[in-house]
Formats: sequence, C-alpha cells, structure tokens
Amino acid sequence: MTNSELAFPRVVIVGAGFAGLAVAKKLANQALRVTLIDRHNYHLFQPLLYQVATAELTASEIAVPIRHILKKAQNIEVILDAVNDVDTQNQLVTTESGKQLPYDYLVLAAGARHSYFGHDQWERFAPGLKTIEDAHLIKNRILSAFERAEVEADPELRQALLTFVIVGGGPTGVELAGAVAEIARKSMAHEFRHISPELARIILVDAGPRVLAAFDEKLSRKALADLKSLGVEVLTNTPVEGIDELTVRLGDHNIASETVIWAAGVQASPAAQWLGIKAERGNHIPVDDNMNVAGFDNIFAIGDTASFIPAGSDRPLPGVAAVAKQQGHFVGKFIRAKVLGNKPPLFRYRDYGSMATIGRNKAVVWLNGWRITGFPGWLLWSVVHIYYLIGFPNRFLVAFNWFWNYLTSQRSVRLIFGIEKTKS
Amino acid sequence: MTNSELAFPRVVIVGAGFAGLAVAKKLANQALRVTLIDRHNYHLFQPLLYQVATAELTASEIAVPIRHILKKAQNIEVILDAVNDVDTQNQLVTTESGKQLPYDYLVLAAGARHSYFGHDQWERFAPGLKTIEDAHLIKNRILSAFERAEVEADPELRQALLTFVIVGGGPTGVELAGAVAEIARKSMAHEFRHISPELARIILVDAGPRVLAAFDEKLSRKALADLKSLGVEVLTNTPVEGIDELTVRLGDHNIASETVIWAAGVQASPAAQWLGIKAERGNHIPVDDNMNVAGFDNIFAIGDTASFIPAGSDRPLPGVAAVAKQQGHFVGKFIRAKVLGNKPPLFRYRDYGSMATIGRNKAVVWLNGWRITGFPGWLLWSVVHIYYLIGFPNRFLVAFNWFWNYLTSQRSVRLIFGIEKTKS
Repeated sequence: MTNSELAFPRVVIVGAGFAGLAVAKKLANQALRVTLIDRHNYHLFQPLLYQVATAELTASEIAVPIRHILKKAQNIEVILDAVNDVDTQNQLVTTESGKQLPYDYLVLAAGARHSYFGHDQWERFAPGLKTIEDAHLIKNRILSAFERAEVEADPELRQALLTFVIVGGGPTGVELAGAVAEIARKSMAHEFRHISPELARIILVDAGPRVLAAFDEKLSRKALADLKSLGVEVLTNTPVEGIDELTVRLGDHNIASETVIWAAGVQASPAAQWLGIKAERGNHIPVDDNMNVAGFDNIFAIGDTASFIPAGSDRPLPGVAAVAKQQGHFVGKFIRAKVLGNKPPLFRYRDYGSMATIGRNKAVVWLNGWRITGFPGWLLWSVVHIYYLIGFPNRFLVAFNWFWNYLTSQRSVRLIFGIEKTKS
Repeated sequence: MTNSELAFPRVVIVGAGFAGLAVAKKLANQALRVTLIDRHNYHLFQPLLYQVATAELTASEIAVPIRHILKKAQNIEVILDAVNDVDTQNQLVTTESGKQLPYDYLVLAAGARHSYFGHDQWERFAPGLKTIEDAHLIKNRILSAFERAEVEADPELRQALLTFVIVGGGPTGVELAGAVAEIARKSMAHEFRHISPELARIILVDAGPRVLAAFDEKLSRKALADLKSLGVEVLTNTPVEGIDELTVRLGDHNIASETVIWAAGVQASPAAQWLGIKAERGNHIPVDDNMNVAGFDNIFAIGDTASFIPAGSDRPLPGVAAVAKQQGHFVGKFIRAKVLGNKPPLFRYRDYGSMATIGRNKAVVWLNGWRITGFPGWLLWSVVHIYYLIGFPNRFLVAFNWFWNYLTSQRSVRLIFGIEKTKS
C-alpha cells in the first residue's frame, strides 16, 4: 500500500447480500479502503433458495464466492467473520473472532432471520429458509419423510409422514408449497413400493385472508387456483397456535404432520443492538432519506436490516432484493460523493414489479401495472431470475436444470446428506 | 403382490455401491423378492469424490437416488437404513432402526471406511475421503485455511494454514494433491489481499518408495514429474508417525500444517462381525471362487467387503470399482442360476487397466499393456469417467464443469457450508 492509500477513508460493510454487495461494487477501485465482512464466504441468490430446499438446484448454482466477485476491486478486502458489536465512540467494529476493524463509514447490511413471533420453541419442528444450511435441512426432512413412510407400518404415522405443512402464504410459502407438490406428484412417482407419494397432502396455512397478500387480488386468486390445481390445500384466515413433533395446532383442528416449514415472518439481525439504539418492529433500524441512522451521520442501514419509509408513504419498503440493491447502490454513491465533496445523490425507489412462481407453467407477475400469469408469466419469471444470477456458469447450470426438469419432471438433487437426517 | 410372488425367494443386498447395485440390476424383474438396503439414499460415484472435496463438482453431480435407478425393477424395494447384525441361524438381517429382514440369499456389499492403522485419534486432524460428508468436511477445511490465512497476523501460523499435507500416494492421494495445487496456483489467484495462495505448500507423503505403487514404474515416475510440475512436494519412504492439531510428525522432522487429508488406508465394514467369522487383514471377508463366504452357501461377499484371491494368484483383487462391479454382476447371475436350477456361471476377472489424473492435461493410464500420459491420457480419463456416470444430466453437468474449469481454471463449488467450518 502506498502512503497516500494509507490515508484513504475506511469503509466497513457488514453483510454481502444484495444490499452490501451493491455498496461494495459502487466503491470498487475508489480512493477508499473497504472491508466487506460476511459470515459466509459466498453471496447467495436468496430468491432461488427454495429450489435448493426442494431438490431442484444445488447450492453452488445460486451462490458465488464473494472474493471472486470482487477479485478486481483491489481496494476491497473480504473477511469471513461475523460482527459482535460496534463501538460508535471509537468507530470500531468488533468481530466474533476478536478482531477490531476501524471505520470512517459503516454500512449495516446484515440481513434478517426468520421470526417465530415469540414462539422460538417451534423452530426445531418448523425450520425457516434463510441459509444454505436451512435449505439442506428442509430438503433432508422432505426426502426423509418419504423414505420413512415407505417402511412405516402404522397407517396413521405413515399419513403424518406424508403430510407437509407450509406456514405462511407469501412468495416463499407459495413457491415451497408448489414445489413440494410437484416433488410428490411428479418426481417421486413410481419409485416407491409401499406408498403412493402422489397421495401426499400438502397444506399451505396463512393467518391472513389470502395468499400473496402483497400482490393485487386478481393475482392472488390466480395463485390460489394454481396451487389447487397442483393439489395443495390452502387454509387462509388460519393462525397457527402450536407446533410440536407430530402436530400443527390450528384454531379448530389439528393436523398430524412430521414435516412443517416456516415461511411466515422475518426479523432483522441484531444490528440495532450493536449500535445501542431502539429498533422498530421486527428489529429493523429506522433510517432517513439517505439511509442514515439517526444520531450517526457516518452509519447507514440498508436492506432487511433497515426500515425505510419513503416520503409520502406510510409503509416501509418491503424486504426484497430490488429494495436492497437500490439502497446499496445509493449508499455507495452517497459515500463517494461525501468523500469527494460532491453533491450527494437523492434516493428514489423504482418499483419494477413483483413475481412468484407456483410450478411448471404457473407463475404470477405484476409488472408496471401489467398482470402476466400461466406460461408467459412462468417464462418471464425464469428469464428474469437467470438474468440476475451472477456469472455465466451459474446461469448456464440453472437454465439446464430447469430445462431438464421441464422435460422430465426429474429433480437432480435428491440427496439426503449432512448431519441431521431426521428430527428424531 | 400375487400369491405366486409371495413364494419367490428373498434376496437381501447390503450396500448400494458399485458391487451391490450391480447385483440388484441383474436381479431386476426376476422371480425374486429383493431388498436393497443402504445407509444413504443415493449411489455415489466414488472415483470422482475427490473433485467434490476440491470444489470442482457438487455432490449431486456424482450421485443418483438409488430408488430412481431401480424405478422400473418392480421386484426390488429400496430401504434407507443400516445393518446392525445378521442372524445366520434364522436367516434374518437386523437393521439399525430395528427391522428384521428375512433372506434366502444374502449379499454383503457394505464397502469400506478409511483406516488409521490403530491411530484412530488422527482422524480428527486428518479426515479421510469416503462419503459426501467427508468430502464437504475436507472442502471446508481447505477453503477455510485460505480464509483464515488471509486474516492471520502471525507469519508462522499463516504458513501452517497455507501448508496442505496429503498422506498416501495412491490414486486418491495423487488426485487430491494435484487438485489442491491447482486450487492454490490457479483458482484462487488474485483473490486475496494479504496472502499469495500461489505460495501455498502442498506435500504428498507416502511410506513406500513411489507414488501410484499399483501402476508400473514408468507411469509412477511420470506421475511424480507431473506432481512436481504443479509444485507438489513428494516425500516417499516417509512413514507418518504422528498427527495433531498443528503438526504432522515424520521420521526426522515435523511439518506445521493445519490441513491434513488421509488417503492412506481402508478397512472393510464390520460385515465379518455380523456373521461372527474371522476376517482377514483390513477386516475383509475371504470368499471362494463363487464369492461365497465359507460355511454359508447362501451368503456372498463382494467389493471392498470381500477379499478374493483368484486361482493362480497370491494377491487379492484390488478394492476398485471394476472389481466390485464384475463381482456384483457375477453374484447376480449366480443367484439367478441357482434359483432356476441352471448351470452356475464361472467368475473370471477382466482387468481393463487403471488410470489416475494429476491435473489439467496430466494423467497416467495403463490400458491393456499400453501407457498413455499427458493430454491424451487426461482426455481418455475424462471420457471414461463421464461414460460411467449414471444418467444424462450428471454426464452433461460434469462435462460442462470440466470444460469451464479447463477454459478458466474456475471452480464453481467454492462454498464453505455445513456444520463444521474449521477444526477449532
């Protein structure tokens, strides 16, 4: 490092998800010393994680090593570690491995975990889907349930093993329910001798009045029809009141199920606690129009960590990739402008639309006021997701897997491996 | 099942590796009731497992669900379970989950694990490579070592993190050493800011006088030259005397290394103990010309479980895929002949040759007396391995990954995930 480089301001970015990575890319090869810290060595393309959980894609097809993405950014160092605390007085980030990283600017983009609304004891029985490890756990449970059902003599227990409950009717819940239905009805057909996987029950439960509540009502109804055509039972207005090893307790009845997946709520990382400030509901940090945290003009919070209410609105922007990316780009540009003494940019969120897929030839897309469903929607969903993946190999491999699955209904990743094979 | 089917003889096959799967395929849709039991739900293509450990392939590309392979064999049931014991008196196999499987014919094809020659305490520090879990553990250790070196201030510890020791100069050890060298010299180049991964030391240690001792001397020498050209240090005539967290102890000196991989010895599964018979060295079960276990004319042992010395030879056949497959085909045909009262077949092993790859454009092949090395050897090795993979998608995906790696030196599976990230 030259002497002049040693005088460059330091930026620490916590988290290499969509938000943190967008900041880093904007700061690449600028007159700044940047440290990007993440607890994983890869950037994960979250929107397709449900396909890792449902044996369609492998983790490596939707993840890329962070340092590979930023290989050419000589001013950025990537550190595999996690944050323990922030000393805002001395401008230091403390890591789990005991390092202290000084910063002039700090960007908190540490993401979110699932939340059980105060019922953390449900997690053991109903894992959520945020990490690759989560996806493997869920995949192992789904595949093991069929394996155990095949050798189960007790008909009641066998039915419980063939009953899958997905809690939460947002995009992740809808996508998981559709994929589990396709595994049972198509991929597994004719492979068992004592059970008919086609007869598995897939139940999607939501406390609200409709699935995909963030979409407009017409698309909601279309998604519901698509789910039903795949044989998914949808229970709306049905809050979950209890989950244990064998049972999901609903208002007026119980469902015996060994495999429950949680897709109902998220909660931000403890970034607010690091700063010693009061967070909003879901532990999100409120930020101003510059993504600035009140009281700290050199600390920014973006993505799922933050809660940002645009001027003229009464609701925070949703916790989706598009918001995280746009906030990241903005903060990158903002820090550059500050350092160079230029006029700072203004943040304006552009909502390009939203989409969710239910299964083969089944998707709902809202695009600048247009509604697209069925095969065109599904195709658009596929093209957009391949476009946003990072790198040619991942794009190619995902496209091939989808093409092959489309032709044959085969899922190539039906392996049970790892530590936990079953709940018991 | 019809009444006549209920009278069909029962065959239990333990293990769905190359040997067990070959038996099952020969018995498909015969007048037999077959149960194939394996502790995994997939058949694993072991010869490429080292590429999962070295971030080139994903597990699903070299593994296929067993029940998918045998989908059309209506007389075969596949069970995910492990064997605990065999009651030869009552002809019952007892499983870990407590099931009892009656058999008329029993085929033991339960494979092998690595063996530390009485030093089981070394396993923690020097994992071997037999399962997908092993491969992920080794991959995590290799990738984590570079990550930890990047942030390590102590130069001695940093060097220990960048020193990789592979114990055992057989095909697995040679292939691992070459692949680790290529990761360090090529795939990781320019991605770190504080270390030069190109300067990593890769050391291959063997107690015997040469690497690839099962090949002829010329090919051995060629492999040695190929390893050296990749910058691998090869220490022959060097028995390992101790392994702990930081050190590999050799005769006259120690190597400080955080990442040690064991590729030195195998030991058969406890099948001999299930039968209550005395096993040979390495726990292998001696078998006669029909792969029959002495004293039990309805029990067969094949693959790594068995030790078979062909007539006129003084050495057992090696523990390789070709032997396992040929023994499996033979036992399948033998059981069919016995049940139908036909003339039993004779087993004759056909040795088509052996091959090992060291790296890009580097392989040694012995084929019916021909020696092939360099690019032609490497190409032949690649084509043969793709040919023997099961299913079009896996062949296609592996070929694409190799092609891409050939063009760019990129390894697409450089993710650290799972439970154990580092030793500490």
